[in-house]
Amino acid sequence: MNKIYSPKPDTWSEILERPTKTVDDIELTVKEIFKEVQKKGDEAVAKYTSIFDGVNFENLEVSIQEIETAVAAVPTELKEAIQLAKSNIEKFHAAQKTAKVEVETVEGVQCWQEKRPIQKIGLYIPGGTAPLFSTVLMLAVPANIAGCKEIVLCSPPDKQGNINPAILYAAQLCGVTKILKVGGIQAIAGLTFGTQTIPKVYKIFGPGNQFVTVAKQLATQYGVAIDMPAGPSELLVVADDIAVPAFVASDLLSQAEHGTDSQVILVSTSKNLIDAVEDEIQLQLEQLPRKEIAEKAIANSKLIYVANDSTALELINEYGPEHFIVCTANDDFYIDGIENAGSVFIGNYTPESAGDYASGTNHTLPTNGYAKNYSGVNLDSFTKSMTFQKISEVGIQKIGKAIEVMAEAEGLQAHKHAVTLRLKSLE
Amino acid sequence: MNKIYSPKPDTWSEILERPTKTVDDIELTVKEIFKEVQKKGDEAVAKYTSIFDGVNFENLEVSIQEIETAVAAVPTELKEAIQLAKSNIEKFHAAQKTAKVEVETVEGVQCWQEKRPIQKIGLYIPGGTAPLFSTVLMLAVPANIAGCKEIVLCSPPDKQGNINPAILYAAQLCGVTKILKVGGIQAIAGLTFGTQTIPKVYKIFGPGNQFVTVAKQLATQYGVAIDMPAGPSELLVVADDIAVPAFVASDLLSQAEHGTDSQVILVSTSKNLIDAVEDEIQLQLEQLPRKEIAEKAIANSKLIYVANDSTALELINEYGPEHFIVCTANDDFYIDGIENAGSVFIGNYTPESAGDYASGTNHTLPTNGYAKNYSGVNLDSFTKSMTFQKISEVGIQKIGKAIEVMAEAEGLQAHKHAVTLRLKSLE
Repeated sequence: MNKIYSPKPDTWSEILERPTKTVDDIELTVKEIFKEVQKKGDEAVAKYTSIFDGVNFENLEVSIQEIETAVAAVPTELKEAIQLAKSNIEKFHAAQKTAKVEVETVEGVQCWQEKRPIQKIGLYIPGGTAPLFSTVLMLAVPANIAGCKEIVLCSPPDKQGNINPAILYAAQLCGVTKILKVGGIQAIAGLTFGTQTIPKVYKIFGPGNQFVTVAKQLATQYGVAIDMPAGPSELLVVADDIAVPAFVASDLLSQAEHGTDSQVILVSTSKNLIDAVEDEIQLQLEQLPRKEIAEKAIANSKLIYVANDSTALELINEYGPEHFIVCTANDDFYIDGIENAGSVFIGNYTPESAGDYASGTNHTLPTNGYAKNYSGVNLDSFTKSMTFQKISEVGIQKIGKAIEVMAEAEGLQAHKHAVTLRLKSLE
Repeated sequence: MNKIYSPKPDTWSEILERPTKTVDDIELTVKEIFKEVQKKGDEAVAKYTSIFDGVNFENLEVSIQEIETAVAAVPTELKEAIQLAKSNIEKFHAAQKTAKVEVETVEGVQCWQEKRPIQKIGLYIPGGTAPLFSTVLMLAVPANIAGCKEIVLCSPPDKQGNINPAILYAAQLCGVTKILKVGGIQAIAGLTFGTQTIPKVYKIFGPGNQFVTVAKQLATQYGVAIDMPAGPSELLVVADDIAVPAFVASDLLSQAEHGTDSQVILVSTSKNLIDAVEDEIQLQLEQLPRKEIAEKAIANSKLIYVANDSTALELINEYGPEHFIVCTANDDFYIDGIENAGSVFIGNYTPESAGDYASGTNHTLPTNGYAKNYSGVNLDSFTKSMTFQKISEVGIQKIGKAIEVMAEAEGLQAHKHAVTLRLKSLE
């Protein structure tokens, strides 16, 4: 752990620097697989599933029988936990619905804004050792509330050709319309172009490894939208003497276990707290099954002492953390002043893992400083805003002149003429 | 004009195909200029301003004197038109403000969502023959309502080293904080990296030529967000015998004058209307100063007859037009059923140019089929949604067990432990 005392502002960006990855070598692979899937469809998808996942399929689609078997295999305790999480996520995202915004800007000029669902979306759920069924909830629940018609889930099969039962359980519970046993670049390519089995979608959501991340970026060049650019997960905690050091340490460690490149930062106005948290981390680290991963992330972590809350807030806003835990005597100051953060966790009893699973907020959040310009996934991520206008005869008479003058000044005579014609017809 | 009668659905995608452009050759130029601006800052910006705009500057920034001179030079009639447009845009975008969304998902688990402004944004306003001061209104007005702190406007200078007075007038009227005489790739690169004179921003808005479009795409690889991907402007009109053919023709032409690659489509259940509109287009075309441009766009336009409104709607949703004019006996059917469109114009007295300038809706809209997955610019484009959660001792006892079970099932023990510690402390 790196303890840094009162760093000067001109050193902040260096201290807070995130690891950058070169993706140039991956890009070529991704482009090739995209081209092949575009040309050969399912045949190419099957080929790469065989190469990367070691499985040969007759049919990529998960059958109703497979889903039923999976549902039966999930322990009741886990089912109940998933149901509670789903219920909370539903409550919070349903509350984000917005009514039609309707304004008569001038007499006879009726304007309104409505949000309508993106019709076809794809959810990518990684496989591997940690089956992220929680991400199924975070994406499929708001997609359903938004009213998306087709919700297609892709997840890579294990060596036996199966998807983890908890993922299948969550998918059927949350109204996913199609589940496909396909992962990696070939899944993203399939969702981008459509194949015989994989539907073409308009927007792709979900986390993934470097290959999936680069594939999602490439998908945007083919007209598909994505939830947001991805980077390693990160947590910044600001805490002072009112915080329980063991709690703070446990939060930093739960971030650190995600991967060796996870970002873990503690900012404090208390040197005592920094020392106490450091000791606690060492103690707790010993008990972790993923100790090796967490140890490496912790080795790169930063414990930063600053003189006061204002300096702390300034530094935090410059960083723009994905997850931001606030546990200080001065919480309101941070809550009011935070400009750039994905999700904020307040007080001693709000661990980051609450938001990861069950509080109701979304855990798909902007990393890598993207909290400065991107929203985390929310209900609006599954809709687009459309505007409407209806102008009456009176209305066009009220604003027609202004349109004519402006169109003329921009050198667009046909724009002007479209109004002039109508005004003349009313003379 | 191409008249097509009752095309079969499997030919729609071909009929509605948009022109695609190869940008590979441009990409190299854009990348080189980006690297040079990143390395050399203002020096590189000055170099390319000299090359592309033929102007050598001491100072890129527009001075207060220049603004005052510009304000004095704008005719009163145009000022009043701009003020009316601004007022309507303000009313409509201010109405889009959303209140904090607050939900207690479970006793003691308080979650809320707030939108906070993107702190630093850049607006790109093209120069050239048509000075798009209307776009200044469409971007700066909502940026101001959202509360963006820095609003930086870049626009290329003319041969005399000036920006069009109407652009400067609109900029100062709408609270732009800095105006820079810089255009093209070097402007987007400057906003991406920051130079001695150009501030680095978090999100870039605004239209531009192919170079600007590719530059904005490249900016996203350096962590900057953009409003949306751009393509040639497009209009689809659905009209039947209640529509005035001369009005429909004038709308199609006002789209066509934008550029030779503009997309102009009429869909109708009336062959009579199609013929009448065709005649009107020929008549009106003769009077247009931009006849040459409009003529080429019209030559590629499509007049499509379909048997009924259902088929029309299906075809329109497959296309996803940027601008969608509805003028039929059955307007509500289209308004309710439209899934993919940027902005919708309803009835005989709602020309597209109303939305381009003064009705109050935004004219920065998704083209190229992006209406399927992107919103037009709206108030939320200038904010990001952040979530907050505060869990009490009671709250963590209510949801702690579910978090433990889910974290365990995902193999994330440290996530579980962060909850276990807190639950034990309350025993």
